[in-house]
Amino acid sequence: MISAKSSEELYNEYKHQIRKIADVKNALNILQWDQETYLPSKGASFRAQQTATLSELAHQLFTSEYFGNILQELNSRNNLSQKEKRNVELSNEDYIKQKKFTSDFVKKMSETVSKSFHAWIDARRQNAFSAFEKDLNGLLQLKKEEAYLLGFENHPYNALLNEFEKGCTVKLLDKIFTEILYPLKKLFDQINSKPQIDDSCLHQYFPKQQQWDFGIKIIGQLGFDFKAGRQDISEHPFTTSFNNNDVRITTRIDEHNFAGMLWSCIHESGHALYEQGLPETEYGLPLGEYTSLGIHESQSRLWENCVGRGKTFWNYHYKELQDTFPDQLAEVSLQQFYKAINKVEPSLIRTEADELTYHFHVMIRYEIEKLLIEGTIGAHDIPAYWNEHYEKYLDLKVPDDKRGCLQDIHWSHGSFGYFPTYSLGSFYAAQLYGKAIKQNPAIEQAIGKGDTNPLLDYLRKHIFQYGRMYTSEELFAVIGGEPLDIKYFLEYLFDKYKNIYIL
Amino acid sequence: MISAKSSEELYNEYKHQIRKIADVKNALNILQWDQETYLPSKGASFRAQQTATLSELAHQLFTSEYFGNILQELNSRNNLSQKEKRNVELSNEDYIKQKKFTSDFVKKMSETVSKSFHAWIDARRQNAFSAFEKDLNGLLQLKKEEAYLLGFENHPYNALLNEFEKGCTVKLLDKIFTEILYPLKKLFDQINSKPQIDDSCLHQYFPKQQQWDFGIKIIGQLGFDFKAGRQDISEHPFTTSFNNNDVRITTRIDEHNFAGMLWSCIHESGHALYEQGLPETEYGLPLGEYTSLGIHESQSRLWENCVGRGKTFWNYHYKELQDTFPDQLAEVSLQQFYKAINKVEPSLIRTEADELTYHFHVMIRYEIEKLLIEGTIGAHDIPAYWNEHYEKYLDLKVPDDKRGCLQDIHWSHGSFGYFPTYSLGSFYAAQLYGKAIKQNPAIEQAIGKGDTNPLLDYLRKHIFQYGRMYTSEELFAVIGGEPLDIKYFLEYLFDKYKNIYIL
Repeated sequence: MISAKSSEELYNEYKHQIRKIADVKNALNILQWDQETYLPSKGASFRAQQTATLSELAHQLFTSEYFGNILQELNSRNNLSQKEKRNVELSNEDYIKQKKFTSDFVKKMSETVSKSFHAWIDARRQNAFSAFEKDLNGLLQLKKEEAYLLGFENHPYNALLNEFEKGCTVKLLDKIFTEILYPLKKLFDQINSKPQIDDSCLHQYFPKQQQWDFGIKIIGQLGFDFKAGRQDISEHPFTTSFNNNDVRITTRIDEHNFAGMLWSCIHESGHALYEQGLPETEYGLPLGEYTSLGIHESQSRLWENCVGRGKTFWNYHYKELQDTFPDQLAEVSLQQFYKAINKVEPSLIRTEADELTYHFHVMIRYEIEKLLIEGTIGAHDIPAYWNEHYEKYLDLKVPDDKRGCLQDIHWSHGSFGYFPTYSLGSFYAAQLYGKAIKQNPAIEQAIGKGDTNPLLDYLRKHIFQYGRMYTSEELFAVIGGEPLDIKYFLEYLFDKYKNIYIL
Repeated sequence: MISAKSSEELYNEYKHQIRKIADVKNALNILQWDQETYLPSKGASFRAQQTATLSELAHQLFTSEYFGNILQELNSRNNLSQKEKRNVELSNEDYIKQKKFTSDFVKKMSETVSKSFHAWIDARRQNAFSAFEKDLNGLLQLKKEEAYLLGFENHPYNALLNEFEKGCTVKLLDKIFTEILYPLKKLFDQINSKPQIDDSCLHQYFPKQQQWDFGIKIIGQLGFDFKAGRQDISEHPFTTSFNNNDVRITTRIDEHNFAGMLWSCIHESGHALYEQGLPETEYGLPLGEYTSLGIHESQSRLWENCVGRGKTFWNYHYKELQDTFPDQLAEVSLQQFYKAINKVEPSLIRTEADELTYHFHVMIRYEIEKLLIEGTIGAHDIPAYWNEHYEKYLDLKVPDDKRGCLQDIHWSHGSFGYFPTYSLGSFYAAQLYGKAIKQNPAIEQAIGKGDTNPLLDYLRKHIFQYGRMYTSEELFAVIGGEPLDIKYFLEYLFDKYKNIYIL
């Protein structure tokens, strides 16, 4: 009988079970990493099957009655430590959520996602959103069902947002995006009235191997532990983790776009430093997991933008870069380089956008998702809405669907509610970094000497160590006693561009 | 009720279940491949745990009552096709075997193996077999238990041999090794009386990248499908397969030992061609698996030795090799090269042995294993027996345990009964290849023109397509109507060395 067991015995059994599940999930991560890096082409079909089997096993283990009973019993015990209690609470939340989905629903979702993913691939090939419409509508129907199964207050989209960013709501996002829209647009117009920056120095020929070597060097200098991780090449850069001692990032190299490689390295390193810094003793438990997607993204963007596109950082590192690429950069001044890497230019493609215009891309997607999930529009209405708003916000005519509403993979995967976490990441990052260097000026001084350890220590202390202990909102209260405030992000942008575009 | 289901429904459910198990096992293979190729050093401890979890899951799925009931019911049905019947029979055999081990026994074995593996590592570090003795004795005790659990006729070692080579017995091996010992020793003595071959041409400086490129080229020419597999670098070369469309080999490169790289590539390609050639439609089922370890090894050795150390092969390829390494080989004649790659020289280390002396290494290990399992000797007696027989067969004094009885990993892993399959592999290979080129002279003619397709087709037709349909003995009866006969191997060796050493 479970109820006859001591809390210690029971907690140990809980740990044993949840770690077994984590082992299976991490095996899945390894299979997916391999798929993106080294899988031979013919291996894809069996790999899909192997992945499906492991996913099913992980789900079965997690939703087993036995595991549920342990959680329920532990939840009623009063003699757990604070951390133990929190782990059990969170696992119980996850358990209750997972149990809301019948295995029929899970199966239907997985089939529908698979169908709609292939429809998206096809539609991209045809460059016609209409070929994706029918399957996307089918998937949307299921996502609405999912929202109702999960339950929500006020708006069904809240249920989906919660999956990526616990506590995030339409109300909060509406407020943030409304507040930011006008100042961002104003700043954008100001910049547009100034002479454009010449960033051709970044588009010279930079040989592959030298780019790779420089990337590896910078990653190491940021504090990435190569004994507990590695970098490889893949088509789309990503970070994955099998445990805090094995965190892997990828990059891609374009010999005529040096920036593409380097800032993807720094971005993914930001994710990876977070994963390497999660508490090892909590492996497999909620407190060994990241807070939320928004916080994860805040780490990548803090390093990529606040640090990696900052003057302070390049004050130190630009000499190294010039020494590595003398033919390309000996004649390019630090100021020219600094301007080039911070050029603002409206673009059709989200992943190529600068720090400012990026958020227009997200706002458009956010509005569309909200309208889709509440049922105000259907898949059929997406292209018109999309194209109209790209013109409105960015003054761009969308020439075709591939460069328009077919560009992102997210919807085809059923990831509705994901995009806002990208913007939240930037906003969180600016606030975090702004507070960190204000409270500890030594952090920025060290970066100017090529030493990012004080910053990393700050992040370890204020973020990494907590795992999923807090929601992002609670975490901000703990760190700075203040909720998310977009003034930090706006200040950060104004400061940067004032100098660059002489505003 | 299972008994109410049609045979077709039941067979489909059997396939579904066994493929799920195969998916988990193949995920394990991926984790192990990654461990040997790309795992960052700190990742090892969690990887061990993740591997243990997946192993346990695979074992639980395979030995579940549900799966057992399906097998039992299917076994009683008369309306299965011949292939279906054979799959069910073999799975049932495997199931009955696995069920003989209680989970306590499995756990104890896994712990004991882990302990004894670490003791072996330690003992190697100390260069003292005595540090391995105690744990090896503990493991031996369990292996004897295993033999009794499995059941056997005549000799407990037969039970262990069967795990690697179904149908193989002490009686058979005693006969083979007795028959071969004298002629082999005589040939060895004859060769020793002749002037030794100069193989210094193989120990010049061969740059890493050029070696790699040449290896990849040869592997492709042998028929390895790089869309269904890949090669990477690891400390010890190996082959692993996740399904016939994803077969991976590894090699290592020593810039002063060209042969080490090239023949490891060819050897592993032999294994890989077999795995790539197994019937895809039988994925996860016994008929999609290899016949036995001996047959697997016959494939690697057939390509490595019969083909890859043959004059015919190099008649065509030597020009390519000279063109790749003109500084090293332009002045080395084909005959000199051919002699160098077939030099016979007694050595202390099994994995470095030539085609002839290799079998003395195996015979010594075989005798020791037999005596250990029957209880005639204990771990304590190994070094004396080892050293005495290295002197007797190879006229070598073993200077220390690291270059003696501590050199192989096998015993520390509990793999007793594995070594004989290496020799069987060579004997099978010679017989197979001898028959193939006699029946189809076009096979050898094609090899002389750089075309190994006719050979590969022969192997596909006579070996690959059958999977585990037959035991190795039955397979030989099907192919050539004749059981294993070491005269083929002896003829093959005499033919080769007669020419090389002018006997």
